[in-house]
Amino acid sequence: MRQSLNEKCAVVGIFNHVEASKLAYFSLHSLQHRGQEAAGISSGDGERLHTIKDRGLVTQVFDEQKLATLKGHMAIGHTRYSTAGDDSILDAQPVHANYDLGQISIVHNGNLTNAQEVRNKLIKEGAIFQSSMDTENLIHLIARSNQGKLKDRIIDAVKQIEGAFSLVFLSRSKMFAVRDRFGFRPLALGRIGEGYVVASETCAFDLIGATYIRDVEPGEMLIFEKGKAPQSLKIFDAMPKHCIFEYVYFARPDSEVFGKNVYQKRKNMGVQLAKEQPIEADMVVPVPDGGVPAAIGYSQESGIPYEMGIMRNHYIGRTFIEPTQEMRDLKVKMKLSPIRELIEGKRLIVIDDSIVRGTTSRRIVRMLKEAGAAEVHMRISSPPTTDPCFYGVDTPNKEKLIAANMSIDEICHYIEADSLAFLSTEALMRSVRAEGSEYCTACFTGEYIV
Amino acid sequence: MRQSLNEKCAVVGIFNHVEASKLAYFSLHSLQHRGQEAAGISSGDGERLHTIKDRGLVTQVFDEQKLATLKGHMAIGHTRYSTAGDDSILDAQPVHANYDLGQISIVHNGNLTNAQEVRNKLIKEGAIFQSSMDTENLIHLIARSNQGKLKDRIIDAVKQIEGAFSLVFLSRSKMFAVRDRFGFRPLALGRIGEGYVVASETCAFDLIGATYIRDVEPGEMLIFEKGKAPQSLKIFDAMPKHCIFEYVYFARPDSEVFGKNVYQKRKNMGVQLAKEQPIEADMVVPVPDGGVPAAIGYSQESGIPYEMGIMRNHYIGRTFIEPTQEMRDLKVKMKLSPIRELIEGKRLIVIDDSIVRGTTSRRIVRMLKEAGAAEVHMRISSPPTTDPCFYGVDTPNKEKLIAANMSIDEICHYIEADSLAFLSTEALMRSVRAEGSEYCTACFTGEYIV
Amino acid sequence: MRQSLNEKCAVVGIFNHVEASKLAYFSLHSLQHRGQEAAGISSGDGERLHTIKDRGLVTQVFDEQKLATLKGHMAIGHTRYSTAGDDSILDAQPVHANYDLGQISIVHNGNLTNAQEVRNKLIKEGAIFQSSMDTENLIHLIARSNQGKLKDRIIDAVKQIEGAFSLVFLSRSKMFAVRDRFGFRPLALGRIGEGYVVASETCAFDLIGATYIRDVEPGEMLIFEKGKAPQSLKIFDAMPKHCIFEYVYFARPDSEVFGKNVYQKRKNMGVQLAKEQPIEADMVVPVPDGGVPAAIGYSQESGIPYEMGIMRNHYIGRTFIEPTQEMRDLKVKMKLSPIRELIEGKRLIVIDDSIVRGTTSRRIVRMLKEAGAAEVHMRISSPPTTDPCFYGVDTPNKEKLIAANMSIDEICHYIEADSLAFLSTEALMRSVRAEGSEYCTACFTGEYIV
Amino acid sequence: MRQSLNEKCAVVGIFNHVEASKLAYFSLHSLQHRGQEAAGISSGDGERLHTIKDRGLVTQVFDEQKLATLKGHMAIGHTRYSTAGDDSILDAQPVHANYDLGQISIVHNGNLTNAQEVRNKLIKEGAIFQSSMDTENLIHLIARSNQGKLKDRIIDAVKQIEGAFSLVFLSRSKMFAVRDRFGFRPLALGRIGEGYVVASETCAFDLIGATYIRDVEPGEMLIFEKGKAPQSLKIFDAMPKHCIFEYVYFARPDSEVFGKNVYQKRKNMGVQLAKEQPIEADMVVPVPDGGVPAAIGYSQESGIPYEMGIMRNHYIGRTFIEPTQEMRDLKVKMKLSPIRELIEGKRLIVIDDSIVRGTTSRRIVRMLKEAGAAEVHMRISSPPTTDPCFYGVDTPNKEKLIAANMSIDEICHYIEADSLAFLSTEALMRSVRAEGSEYCTACFTGEYIV
Repeated sequence: MRQSLNEKCAVVGIFNHVEASKLAYFSLHSLQHRGQEAAGISSGDGERLHTIKDRGLVTQVFDEQKLATLKGHMAIGHTRYSTAGDDSILDAQPVHANYDLGQISIVHNGNLTNAQEVRNKLIKEGAIFQSSMDTENLIHLIARSNQGKLKDRIIDAVKQIEGAFSLVFLSRSKMFAVRDRFGFRPLALGRIGEGYVVASETCAFDLIGATYIRDVEPGEMLIFEKGKAPQSLKIFDAMPKHCIFEYVYFARPDSEVFGKNVYQKRKNMGVQLAKEQPIEADMVVPVPDGGVPAAIGYSQESGIPYEMGIMRNHYIGRTFIEPTQEMRDLKVKMKLSPIRELIEGKRLIVIDDSIVRGTTSRRIVRMLKEAGAAEVHMRISSPPTTDPCFYGVDTPNKEKLIAANMSIDEICHYIEADSLAFLSTEALMRSVRAEGSEYCTACFTGEYIV
Repeated sequence: MRQSLNEKCAVVGIFNHVEASKLAYFSLHSLQHRGQEAAGISSGDGERLHTIKDRGLVTQVFDEQKLATLKGHMAIGHTRYSTAGDDSILDAQPVHANYDLGQISIVHNGNLTNAQEVRNKLIKEGAIFQSSMDTENLIHLIARSNQGKLKDRIIDAVKQIEGAFSLVFLSRSKMFAVRDRFGFRPLALGRIGEGYVVASETCAFDLIGATYIRDVEPGEMLIFEKGKAPQSLKIFDAMPKHCIFEYVYFARPDSEVFGKNVYQKRKNMGVQLAKEQPIEADMVVPVPDGGVPAAIGYSQESGIPYEMGIMRNHYIGRTFIEPTQEMRDLKVKMKLSPIRELIEGKRLIVIDDSIVRGTTSRRIVRMLKEAGAAEVHMRISSPPTTDPCFYGVDTPNKEKLIAANMSIDEICHYIEADSLAFLSTEALMRSVRAEGSEYCTACFTGEYIV
Repeated sequence: MRQSLNEKCAVVGIFNHVEASKLAYFSLHSLQHRGQEAAGISSGDGERLHTIKDRGLVTQVFDEQKLATLKGHMAIGHTRYSTAGDDSILDAQPVHANYDLGQISIVHNGNLTNAQEVRNKLIKEGAIFQSSMDTENLIHLIARSNQGKLKDRIIDAVKQIEGAFSLVFLSRSKMFAVRDRFGFRPLALGRIGEGYVVASETCAFDLIGATYIRDVEPGEMLIFEKGKAPQSLKIFDAMPKHCIFEYVYFARPDSEVFGKNVYQKRKNMGVQLAKEQPIEADMVVPVPDGGVPAAIGYSQESGIPYEMGIMRNHYIGRTFIEPTQEMRDLKVKMKLSPIRELIEGKRLIVIDDSIVRGTTSRRIVRMLKEAGAAEVHMRISSPPTTDPCFYGVDTPNKEKLIAANMSIDEICHYIEADSLAFLSTEALMRSVRAEGSEYCTACFTGEYIV
Repeated sequence: MRQSLNEKCAVVGIFNHVEASKLAYFSLHSLQHRGQEAAGISSGDGERLHTIKDRGLVTQVFDEQKLATLKGHMAIGHTRYSTAGDDSILDAQPVHANYDLGQISIVHNGNLTNAQEVRNKLIKEGAIFQSSMDTENLIHLIARSNQGKLKDRIIDAVKQIEGAFSLVFLSRSKMFAVRDRFGFRPLALGRIGEGYVVASETCAFDLIGATYIRDVEPGEMLIFEKGKAPQSLKIFDAMPKHCIFEYVYFARPDSEVFGKNVYQKRKNMGVQLAKEQPIEADMVVPVPDGGVPAAIGYSQESGIPYEMGIMRNHYIGRTFIEPTQEMRDLKVKMKLSPIRELIEGKRLIVIDDSIVRGTTSRRIVRMLKEAGAAEVHMRISSPPTTDPCFYGVDTPNKEKLIAANMSIDEICHYIEADSLAFLSTEALMRSVRAEGSEYCTACFTGEYIV
């Protein structure tokens, strides 16, 4: 259970399907966990692009009537997480503009590390910026490129930006998908009927009935044009540095991400955690839902029984009612509740995927102790989160990352656990069955790529 | 995952607390799983009763301002499941009325088996009925009783009704809790500060910081009066026939119901199921969330690994968008999705709590097969549901109960499973560690009490 | 412009039309000025009655889908003004009940003067009351009547009640309209196709395409039955005492009320006012919209030019924003604004229909003076409102009626006008071209009928 | 009553007031008649600009909490009429951008005649356009100007645009107001406390307690800077061509527009109309509310009595219910209804401000005839509308302007009136007591300025 780290968004693109915007809608729906603040779709009918975007969940932004206005055989979509600002509606995507080659729409998952410099340079040259989104840079770069063709202009543009980007573009007649050379953020390619889909996670494919082909490669550009097979261009030399946190926490367990299944990676982390950080106890209890696969792995490896000692309440809704004096830790308790009779007097190994600020972990430990747990041993299926992310994850400042400011012992004391252990970075790498070099682990190691 | 059987409601009562209506609000919130269509609270300040009720979830019906108008040190509340009718708002509870002794408010969980006869008799005597709720009978019976005191009138009234009832009444200065002699529906008693709480399930106590004392006994009336300990009257001889389906499906796993923890009973059912219905397979997979505890039990007993092979999506929302041709079984797929890579080529034991119409089970089996499962063995942690409930559960007609119309083999064929087995009634009884006579199992046996 | 006196409601009934509930909907819409808090319709298809009612304007309570569920060839409807209470939804009409003769629905415009006594008597006999509406009495009286037929039971019931009532009843197959012997509140009969309409005002007929036949007579009951002409029964001796305030303020100017057109009566009041209360001035200015017809009459009689010196703003909406220091009398100014250049330095005769508390009049006078008016002479087209109404108008307590507590000179001083005059009761009677005895003028004279 | 011609917007600016955004809010509220589709405010606190804009009425877009985030001592605001498009939210104003001099916000009332050329030129130079608003041009021109100071850049920019513009700009520390050389659209200057206000109409001043100083002159730029008196620059030679339709229909009667009161101008038109187009009749009846002042003028000049023979219904709301067969012309009838008894058998002179498509006039004539009018003589207080507007009014295409396609006789026949006459352009000019050259009358004459 986490409220501290958030993926910034999801992207989808549909090409060559009579109900392209409807497929985009359902795809976004299955990617809703990657961003709940705003949603948008641009469609193209070969003549014009049509865009609708607004604050809210996918199901709130769109209805049958609005989807009907998003005509055409191709569509791109976006859901986003955002800190509420003055102009938040203007910060929704797709970003749409008219420029010298006509109309263009873009969706972007990731974060540019040189966004401010590029922006300043563009502003000096007379560009105006109407939002606070990095993505606006891209349209300016494309509009100002000397190249004649859009394809070449996109290449020109993405070569001037740095950082993390999984991008999908829509022009009057084509769709383009581009991924940065590191492949920080995922982007998968699928097939549906005679058409194609790209999406941040493959769970989108499953819902709409598409089949997974492969990932868009780091540094690759795919061009979708009617009547042709997708054309692939290598525009950067690939240097894979996939975001390890997609496996640790963000992606849906049923998704293929970076070509591999998330649930199994997450379960492996639990297995490795059991090997590295064994302890005697009566049961293994996940913090739902994030800790479930790792807890299953820990239990299988350790032989200690798995129990759903904490249940998650599904009827939460937003309440603005102030609790009474007797009601402590209401926010956590409305979401999570211990199975008192199960854990009473028992020694628990509690598995969570990560600790960011430590406040939620403390509330959970307290809740379990109040419910009678004899011992609470926290086991975290990832290393201490010590450094902020600059590649598209919304992390708190370093001062608020508990592991950047306390030793493990201090954290253990702070969260009031009987013991606390994290997975090592090496074991994490073993879990994903990769040589470490393929993944970005900067949030655990501080080793940033650029 | 079920949409066919529904608990009809939840009741709460708070006595002697300065924030009685707020405690009722949070209690109802934790009982939201027992009814999502309407919610209501009546409070009493010693002078007047105040009532607010409306369609919607607890968090939608109430806000801080409305709760502020529900003044007083005592409050009763209700959430309800209902089939939408013309007047559904009038069918919300509490039912409130003025009669010769002043004001009264009632909340009711259960179903009266002689409601129509009592109603007809009352109507013949000149009574008018403004709703379709059984509960309206009770106020008429109380208003027409010859007894002088409310306590005696309530006794008079409940002696004329038959069926299932866990009732809480509020008068100008007192609160009464009454449970039918069979104790069909649960009702627990708790303590908070200097005050008392009654609620359908103890999960309400945990959220508001109350402690469980005991159940209100079958046939017992409790009278709460300021400055006195709760007074207990035995108004019927107890003949316990607790609703076994509370353990099978309705109640929250973290609740004490009929004095025992639900999660553990549900897990026991899984253990018994493994003993009665073993089968060789690669993994045990629950249908979330209902099947989770039994699947854990089955796995522990059989030694076959437990895996979350089906995940539940939390961002559902209501969508009214028509799916495309490619999208089959959308409704199930938006809620549940298989971990394709985990189950591919594997033999699965899939655990669900019950089968009502069979349509959802069929969709789940198909989904798993499409995702590559080699074998799907359905194991149900309760006996075949063959008979409708007359004691407060919303069951379909007998014609729609698949187990009333097909043999187990036929059901297995219908849901396209490789094998199908149910828990026997005897094993179900062993699971709850009771002699069968304490429970109502009419929905499995057709043996109705009355 | 008034916010102090309010009609309590409007009723309609439609009989023998394939789209009865739709006609009820549009009729209520044109009667919206008589009550904006709640709306409801019951329809009957010969088998069952269907009822929908809720808080809000007619257009908010109903949509095409809801109207579709209100099946049948007959329908009754209601809009209501209400002081918001705990249970306001329960106080919406139609009141619907099941009783020994089956189903019944009632709508009521008016106020019973012996409601409390009847209620107390009924309660003593064992009746329960679920709302605070007088109307609930009627259903009890009908349900308890010894008569065999509904017609006779209704007669039985209305003979036990006193006060003002224009009632429409719906049973399984018939519709009944009843008006008290005094005819306090209006009720008109019209024809549409092969069917009939009754409504509080004839403006409802104009919208739906019905034609006015005559009023339901004071003391008359009309019975509508399929295949028969409406049957008329005289159940009370008529003693007409029509509410004069319908002419002064409530009814729409385009309506026939008590058989005569409202606009013309209101204009006559202005003519009489000019005769009784002449004064030298530069222009006659109405307080819109209520004062318009009387101001036209005053202008025509006096020869002093009519000018729309105060305009009414139509885009009001509700604002909860606190004004700044500079902004005085915001509430009035958002609704009304003076034509500064027109009135600057001018002597104004300002015509309003009545003064209840005096606060709005004071704000208007101040606003006109600030805008430069040299003199403001208030002329009120009705006598001083000195007494509360017990027959269906929501008046403030006598302590809050300014004319009950101050002399005309004192009121003039309070509202800061240069002069103030009211129409005499005699002249008011001349305006409606009636011998005074036909009208209830209790609010001006304190002479109550009963 | 019109739905065919619409003012495109209103602008306001507040400088040097502690509650600047609140004053902007109330000012916009009183200008709501100039645009109901979207509203927005940008405020400045000397450091940053803050912007909120959205679809809806002013009261729907803003609440106390949102206004609180619009900090600072200066604010500009906008309401807009718009044809709903894909991106309508992006077409709301203020338009806000970051550029090389920092932040800027603009609001614009009017229409640029060379917008497309400027846009094309800018796009060729690499600019991107994210909305379909002319206003976006301005920010680009400012951002690309070679001038150093914002003041000079604004001058640079507005010299490149043609057409109608009343503009207000907000920068980090200053506010600028600019009006095109023709002064097509109004813009008035007022004082509030130590601060200043500019607004499209003076009715905004009245509500917030500001006092009118003078109009911003055609061709003038006003610069508002803290601690200084507003600085006036003549940036164009003034060639006044005020929009005559502001007097005919758009502006509120209580406003000063182009320095003169609207109500009186409109009444003068009625006087002139009576002189030019007299006819024998029984009464003069306005089409409310637009026709009221001219009808008063007509009545006073002709001596024929003024009567409110058509009333306007204030409880309209939106209804989506389909009418029944009997209900013709529902849309007009829900808004307007005749006083049947008043007009029956009478000869009416009906005064309206203009005829655009003719359909509404036809419905009104029919309605009056059905209500029994003996004769209906339409008199229009402006000349035939023969030509579309390019200066900020939303007019239909020439094919839909009835007067562009039919003779007056033909129109009279079409609308089923007994006679029809329009005011001559010369008389219209006399009404506004101006030599014609000061006004743009292109919509009547086809003589466009540029």
